[in-house]
Amino acid sequence: MSEIIPHWLTKQASLSPNDTALELEDGSCLTFNDLMQKSQSFAKKLASQGVDKGTKVGLFSNNCTEMVIAIHALSYLGAVGVFFNIRLTEKELSFQIKDADVSSILAADGLANQINNMNFSLQILSFADVCKLKEVNVPLATEIALDDAFTIMYTSGTTGNPKGVVHTYGNHWWSATGSALNIGIHSNDKWLAVLPLFHIGGLSLLLKSVIYGMPIYLLEKFDEQKVHHAIMNCQVTIASVVTVMLHRLIDLLGEEDYPKSFRCMLLGGGPAPKGLLEKSKDKRVPVFQSYGMTETSSQIVTLSPKDALRKLGSAGKSLFPAQLKIIDANDEGIGEIVVKGPMVTKGYYKNKQATAKSIQEGWLSTGDLGKLDEEGFLYVVDRRKDLIISGGENIYPSEIESVLSSMVGVKEVGVTGLEDLKWGEVPIAFIVLDDASVTEVEVLQYASKNLAKYKVPKKINFEAELPRNASNKLLRNKLRELMQ
Amino acid sequence: MSEIIPHWLTKQASLSPNDTALELEDGSCLTFNDLMQKSQSFAKKLASQGVDKGTKVGLFSNNCTEMVIAIHALSYLGAVGVFFNIRLTEKELSFQIKDADVSSILAADGLANQINNMNFSLQILSFADVCKLKEVNVPLATEIALDDAFTIMYTSGTTGNPKGVVHTYGNHWWSATGSALNIGIHSNDKWLAVLPLFHIGGLSLLLKSVIYGMPIYLLEKFDEQKVHHAIMNCQVTIASVVTVMLHRLIDLLGEEDYPKSFRCMLLGGGPAPKGLLEKSKDKRVPVFQSYGMTETSSQIVTLSPKDALRKLGSAGKSLFPAQLKIIDANDEGIGEIVVKGPMVTKGYYKNKQATAKSIQEGWLSTGDLGKLDEEGFLYVVDRRKDLIISGGENIYPSEIESVLSSMVGVKEVGVTGLEDLKWGEVPIAFIVLDDASVTEVEVLQYASKNLAKYKVPKKINFEAELPRNASNKLLRNKLRELMQ
Repeated sequence: MSEIIPHWLTKQASLSPNDTALELEDGSCLTFNDLMQKSQSFAKKLASQGVDKGTKVGLFSNNCTEMVIAIHALSYLGAVGVFFNIRLTEKELSFQIKDADVSSILAADGLANQINNMNFSLQILSFADVCKLKEVNVPLATEIALDDAFTIMYTSGTTGNPKGVVHTYGNHWWSATGSALNIGIHSNDKWLAVLPLFHIGGLSLLLKSVIYGMPIYLLEKFDEQKVHHAIMNCQVTIASVVTVMLHRLIDLLGEEDYPKSFRCMLLGGGPAPKGLLEKSKDKRVPVFQSYGMTETSSQIVTLSPKDALRKLGSAGKSLFPAQLKIIDANDEGIGEIVVKGPMVTKGYYKNKQATAKSIQEGWLSTGDLGKLDEEGFLYVVDRRKDLIISGGENIYPSEIESVLSSMVGVKEVGVTGLEDLKWGEVPIAFIVLDDASVTEVEVLQYASKNLAKYKVPKKINFEAELPRNASNKLLRNKLRELMQ
Repeated sequence: MSEIIPHWLTKQASLSPNDTALELEDGSCLTFNDLMQKSQSFAKKLASQGVDKGTKVGLFSNNCTEMVIAIHALSYLGAVGVFFNIRLTEKELSFQIKDADVSSILAADGLANQINNMNFSLQILSFADVCKLKEVNVPLATEIALDDAFTIMYTSGTTGNPKGVVHTYGNHWWSATGSALNIGIHSNDKWLAVLPLFHIGGLSLLLKSVIYGMPIYLLEKFDEQKVHHAIMNCQVTIASVVTVMLHRLIDLLGEEDYPKSFRCMLLGGGPAPKGLLEKSKDKRVPVFQSYGMTETSSQIVTLSPKDALRKLGSAGKSLFPAQLKIIDANDEGIGEIVVKGPMVTKGYYKNKQATAKSIQEGWLSTGDLGKLDEEGFLYVVDRRKDLIISGGENIYPSEIESVLSSMVGVKEVGVTGLEDLKWGEVPIAFIVLDDASVTEVEVLQYASKNLAKYKVPKKINFEAELPRNASNKLLRNKLRELMQ
């Protein structure tokens, strides 16, 4: 039976009307009452365009206040938000619009032209357009049924077209409470949102905000100086980042003693190089590694505060309401990570086949490889699809990346496999340097000293930057294109 | 669809194996791993007696470690615990045993004789008896389906027989997380359990313990010196008490500065006299009033930390996942309190009629009267059944109790109505004195100065003690018996 709770924003506006919901870099704030008023008004305006329960509305926006308001407005109408990555090509967008039955798109004012130029045959409204509409007096949701769908986000499969991950309100609820049971809820918490809101890692923070009654410090995009400023001067207590952000931050953070109230740097977006974690430890930055994906409504495995230093390099244990297993493990104990829990999606939008393939009896096959230590802590090894098999040996790109990125002068590393007549596949590395004088020979010498011979990359490519997605995650499958 | 989570004790034992789950007054402790091991062993022994999924097992015990172990053991077997008040008469017990289809009873070692002497025709095992049994290798639950029933507790209706309130695992889960969203989760939290575990206020603490990974400091029963000691010297941060306990405590607490880490005295069990709350405020005891009942799996309305002083006397707002309304309000805004939320029972055991009468479309009629102030804070006025109607005027016993208990020399007060030919009903008061020299005339003078004439009790009865239930709640319906 679907559980019913009061509408979460209305409820928080009732409990904490004058508390800050949203804080922006210019210092301006929105209280929960402000946010409710604005979201309800936005909903009533949107209703004039026929947006209703179950309507699929596309969102094409960078991080901004209006995006936050639009998201909550959709919930007041019972509409489903389809979150587009703003870097998508016309072809990719076109597929998602059609696949998700999107009937209209809401776009950030600065991005409306970009999407209007694509000539999609559906209504596109900028946030400013919506504000000019007249409110229609429709009944707004006062309750939330946790089994109802709220958001759809597309995720690339290993093969075929992207799949629309459907998140129910319940998925988001359990994700938020599962995280709270891990890192606690403190009355002074303020979470830094620098990940894109169109990705699950960003969106999940907005929902934590209304569920916990906690302010979000919202940045339009990642900038290490701004993040540093937020932590040092704006009472941010928790920040969610991905590896490359931490990398860029770490040189700024910890040079002075940062505020004691900063208690958690939540690290997601793939395995982190051990060297980076050790550097963080030395600088006393409280990094907690986590593991999750769109299908798990953000983190589902997180290192807890008490284990953070003792289990450096581990992603931790599954959150309290979740379960985790390693299946089909090899001799080293490495196998596929499968997870289960109420924060796991019930399936892909209108794609029973993909759902049945990925989720069996509640267990989601993640496509990631990992192993558990004797105490049950998870070490994520790599994406299964990124595994390099060379002369019958398994080579995990992240291991090589981790080693090379600890070399002085090396800033970022990406490793992938290249077809090879003799070995089947061989590893090759793509490196961004801090210090332009570093040579291929030096890198190979360093690699030989720290890696078994078959793991030493057969070629080193120096690059100006590595391919990353809008969340700054490394796209290994695009590395090879750099060689063309 | 019923959500599935991992078995909560097994999960907490995996996350925090060596953290304290239970601390006793003699200083001995059980870790979560200990508690899991002992509960699983107890379950395997109990399985030898045919206890299985859905079996109703009675529990007849005071607060002790074995009771905690037995409760978790039942969950490993999927059995349902029927919690008996150990003060019940043979007749009352007999009714509950039959009504709840109880097939066997587990009794505290010190209480086994008492219940054995009652000659019920079912198996009675003391905890020591169970320990002597051989383990049977049955599969224990590894997961919990939140819609499954876990506990049954009987509650007296205004008329007719007691009704068995069924709590699902989900009811307990939502109660625990709802409370966490109100008062937060701190890593140093330790909750004092002094309420009986056979009442919902006590049991709910055990489940918070496994869900939060938080130690419980367990006392066999209330003793103000022991509670004072626990707060002053044993790092207790939160304590759940009822009014009479707070009354007895307040003179001890605050004479010295108590530890800063003590952050919440959660007060339940009926409206508190304003004088007591003010005394607590003066002594800087952080009292948060709350409101709840067996049907709501403990508190469903609680004053939040930020409003505690500003809204003295209010029970607060409904917890984040819950809703509250006042229906059929009179001119003063006083009407029946109705509540809704995932912590509210789905109904009474095998009693569709009572369920249908109490719960309509998810809304539970509480039988309590209350009103909301302009900001939506609840003030509980009284039990509807305790309302005295005198010459057409509504008189709330708790108001008179609150006034009289602020008189110097008065320790406890209970007020009820007496039939009266002229007025229909008139209020009468029962008083326990601190100072034996106080006279009826003095009390009536004090009452006349502070209450409208029709509210002044028509008779003052001095008593050695007032009738209270096992949770120390005043039993107003038994006051009249004192006059016989």
